[in-house]
Amino acid sequence: MTDIDSGLEPVAGNGLLDRRFFLKAGVAGSAALLTAKAGGVEREPWMTAPGAPMSANGAPSRFESELERLNIRSLPGTTGTGVSRTPLQHLDGIITPSRLHFERHHSGIPDIDPEQHRLVLHGLVERPLSFSVEALDRYPQVSRIQFLECSGNSGAGIAPEPVQGTASALHGLVAASEWGGVPLSVLLEEAGVKSEGKWIVVDGADAAIMSRSVPMEKVLDDAIVALYQNGERLRPSNGYPMRLFLPGWEGNVCVKWLRTIKVTDQPAMTRNETSHYSDLMDDGIATLFTFPMGVKSVITSPSPGLTMGPPGLYQVSGIAWTGAGKIRRVEVSADGGKSWADAALDEHVLSKCLTRFRSVWNWDGGPAVLLSRATDETGAVQPTRAAVMQGRAANSFYHYNGIQAWQVSQDGEVTNVYA
Amino acid sequence: MTDIDSGLEPVAGNGLLDRRFFLKAGVAGSAALLTAKAGGVEREPWMTAPGAPMSANGAPSRFESELERLNIRSLPGTTGTGVSRTPLQHLDGIITPSRLHFERHHSGIPDIDPEQHRLVLHGLVERPLSFSVEALDRYPQVSRIQFLECSGNSGAGIAPEPVQGTASALHGLVAASEWGGVPLSVLLEEAGVKSEGKWIVVDGADAAIMSRSVPMEKVLDDAIVALYQNGERLRPSNGYPMRLFLPGWEGNVCVKWLRTIKVTDQPAMTRNETSHYSDLMDDGIATLFTFPMGVKSVITSPSPGLTMGPPGLYQVSGIAWTGAGKIRRVEVSADGGKSWADAALDEHVLSKCLTRFRSVWNWDGGPAVLLSRATDETGAVQPTRAAVMQGRAANSFYHYNGIQAWQVSQDGEVTNVYA
Repeated sequence: MTDIDSGLEPVAGNGLLDRRFFLKAGVAGSAALLTAKAGGVEREPWMTAPGAPMSANGAPSRFESELERLNIRSLPGTTGTGVSRTPLQHLDGIITPSRLHFERHHSGIPDIDPEQHRLVLHGLVERPLSFSVEALDRYPQVSRIQFLECSGNSGAGIAPEPVQGTASALHGLVAASEWGGVPLSVLLEEAGVKSEGKWIVVDGADAAIMSRSVPMEKVLDDAIVALYQNGERLRPSNGYPMRLFLPGWEGNVCVKWLRTIKVTDQPAMTRNETSHYSDLMDDGIATLFTFPMGVKSVITSPSPGLTMGPPGLYQVSGIAWTGAGKIRRVEVSADGGKSWADAALDEHVLSKCLTRFRSVWNWDGGPAVLLSRATDETGAVQPTRAAVMQGRAANSFYHYNGIQAWQVSQDGEVTNVYA
Repeated sequence: MTDIDSGLEPVAGNGLLDRRFFLKAGVAGSAALLTAKAGGVEREPWMTAPGAPMSANGAPSRFESELERLNIRSLPGTTGTGVSRTPLQHLDGIITPSRLHFERHHSGIPDIDPEQHRLVLHGLVERPLSFSVEALDRYPQVSRIQFLECSGNSGAGIAPEPVQGTASALHGLVAASEWGGVPLSVLLEEAGVKSEGKWIVVDGADAAIMSRSVPMEKVLDDAIVALYQNGERLRPSNGYPMRLFLPGWEGNVCVKWLRTIKVTDQPAMTRNETSHYSDLMDDGIATLFTFPMGVKSVITSPSPGLTMGPPGLYQVSGIAWTGAGKIRRVEVSADGGKSWADAALDEHVLSKCLTRFRSVWNWDGGPAVLLSRATDETGAVQPTRAAVMQGRAANSFYHYNGIQAWQVSQDGEVTNVYA
């Protein structure tokens, strides 16, 4: 039998197959041939008595109870200054359940009473305004499914030697949700922005008073005051009762627990945009306001912690995203980047959202290095690690979007490598 | 000031405005003019101390704790034979959080150990096969955001007098999720369907052994063996560890806890497709196998239980869906159907999915009757109640998709009416 006959014609080195062949050929081989007569299968214990009743608040199976946010880290001496990460390697598709959305807080999660909370819009406007949640609920809203990524995500990639960790530990500060709320342009229109108003400065209602400056052009483009996440009101860990959401831009500028918006003629140069969240280069100059997140991808399965089974066909699956719009293409390599094959993209390729990609890999049981490389609709291609590192100062870890390589060993273990 | 100057030019009777005017005009009027100097606003108590720490499993705000599945009903003498409903009137956007996805079980939720569970594929195939969850995980998958609706949803609409209840109580057996899994066509290809195989008969692993017949054409089109819902493994109440998912078709045929698939030459005429889930007509003949759900919409805000505030501008928001593909158009009326205006559709208009629509309504404080009417991409228009009732036998309540009318009274209460 030739490779074409068997549907196993490779499209790139070390066993990458064209997905079309797989779908046609039916050669997965991981199913078991049924020998007993199907009708003779005995009923499992859970079929012999009525099951659990209806419930007001659904929960995952007890067999999935380990699926939680991972790699929770707080600064010493604090409980609420730190991160928790999305368990990317256990998820599929593009939506992140809200309970598993990563967190990055600067002084914990405020316990906000929505009836007391107000959003104040002031500064260079004709009519300073104050909005309750109830008031905002009366405005026409929009909803869109989009990613949110911490600018420090994947920052471990700058380490001289590959840091060992799961996809969550290394890249779990990204998630996608349906974000719904009122276009900020509508509220600014009502307040009447004066001609010299070119920026807004937004503050959060947390004890750290997260504060960031946003240029008016982005605000008028697609900024929203988000009230809903994945259909329900925002969770406290994502800014309840309201947050700024700036599609495609770094997470920290999407200020949670949004309390004040001041229209200004220039950025405020807050501590959160000077001492932090800026990119120090090796000439000693820091680049400020690098808002849009770069084009990026990571293979979530296989990935560290998910041990391979026996050799044979596997789905290689991952997520790709870009702050510039839509993902156009994702390529996968199984031979450390010597050859590449186009991955299939799931049906929903949405702007500024995670896109799920999949390839089919015939693993021969030998060592292999898996990589993914994303290209977005502007033509930007995810860079190599070497390219990302060029010109960076030591320890400058924000906005790292280099190609991730996973080494698969002969015993099926997966580790982080630089390739 | 003319109506055009103020942005208040109506596009249909009783105060329906063009959304474009609203977005431009900035005349919402529900914001409060700020009189005190913004900088002088005192910090709320939750800004004066660090907030709650990071958590492994996120939860809604304690101020939203009443947001649960609603209208839980079980047959007398059972706890697990019945329904719970999605709280539509409290949600926005198109994604339904999994914990709030409606339930319809016939003998409760089985507590399935995924390591013991097998999917058996047999009947008119060359190679009967058995699949563990682990085996299915190796196949290439797909994910899509789509609705699921119980064929009994909205069945209260057949009552001679309007049943009073919330949008959830009347229409809450519909939800939308991202469903991910293996195309069933791939598994059938591997098993090798014999030429006489024209249907499949699928059984669930619950004590009731839910059993339905599905024509092969649909199976090969877009059926999946779903493993993931909204990014994570299916919840037990939605079929953990695997269910059949048939986009756009009535919920009960998307058999949960999928255990066996038998390829047959004809439908099995199970009790679930003869005594139930068939449409009895007034000539005594029952229509069987009416699988795709019809074109439908409902206004979720305002709706019963959500009392209106003072007169003025309001967002009218709701969901529309069709088993035939995409929603093309939703119209809203504020004068009981005498005049209609096109609603705005949110950005994601996906096939066989909920679509969120919104209109702007200048409520004058008087009585009004709000309606919505959806049209899908095939040109099918949501029918009136009278049209849906035509030819039905008494008590034949499945597949009701008539136009829903909400009466708004002078005191801002909303009730169910036939209009």
